[in-house]
Amino acid sequence: MEHLQPLLGCWTGEGEGEYPTIEPFRYGEEVRFWHSGKPFLAYSQRTWSLDDGRPLHAETGYWRASGARQVEVVLAHPTGIVEIDEGVVSDGVIDLHSTFVGCTTTAKAVTQLSRRFVLGGHDAASEGTAGTLSYTLSMAAAGLPLQHHLAATLHR
Amino acid sequence: MEHLQPLLGCWTGEGEGEYPTIEPFRYGEEVRFWHSGKPFLAYSQRTWSLDDGRPLHAETGYWRASGARQVEVVLAHPTGIVEIDEGVVSDGVIDLHSTFVGCTTTAKAVTQLSRRFVLGGHDAASEGTAGTLSYTLSMAAAGLPLQHHLAATLHR
Repeated sequence: MEHLQPLLGCWTGEGEGEYPTIEPFRYGEEVRFWHSGKPFLAYSQRTWSLDDGRPLHAETGYWRASGARQVEVVLAHPTGIVEIDEGVVSDGVIDLHSTFVGCTTTAKAVTQLSRRFVLGGHDAASEGTAGTLSYTLSMAAAGLPLQHHLAATLHR
Repeated sequence: MEHLQPLLGCWTGEGEGEYPTIEPFRYGEEVRFWHSGKPFLAYSQRTWSLDDGRPLHAETGYWRASGARQVEVVLAHPTGIVEIDEGVVSDGVIDLHSTFVGCTTTAKAVTQLSRRFVLGGHDAASEGTAGTLSYTLSMAAAGLPLQHHLAATLHR
């Protein structure tokens, strides 16, 4: 799982969200990746309002090394969503596309997600020490097609 | 979410697993429930072999209060599984049945799960201080029908 090692650690930063159904917003974020010696990374994420610090979103789950460059991500969201993403890691860029999104009875329906992560300063010499993790996330929800929702830049 | 409050805290103990496709096994377990002020509990669980302490299973996710007695559970497993359970809390007994189980491409297929949790010493007077959390889990996997897989008793 060498291709997932550069993710390890705690990342913090800020991001911006938008969607046709809501007002644009800015948020603070903390992302943690850690491992237990098995071929996956545990993952948790939380965001908060930059206005008053109140908690916004959260996610938790696992990133599985399913091949030399492949990754499978399984996530649970407290909004009542479970998500499976699959994708490829290439030159510090991780492109993930949902293969399944499931919702509880009372959840607001999300039907599709795409996530792109970019490790800044990532090259053969600095593997594991990249200092920046940026991502964008697109979402299909509320009956709307897949479109941009979130962008953030985090620092180790 | 009063009906979920008795779960809060850290629980540890031991359990036994069996399934037609594997040798019976015993395991140690730690379960944690915590909250962030929103109407759900964060949940994480890990088990280890009683033989040599090596990590076995893990799960992470959220328990959502979806009504005065209702609960929705969203979970991710590092084995490449996501799980949605829904159920009811009644007199210290929580019965959950999967409404969806999703698997990544390389996961071993699980198709259905049922979980029953029993809070020991749970009554109106001791709410929030129950000292025992027992559970049983049934699973349909490897092409076999839903059947008993795990039983454990944990202490706060």
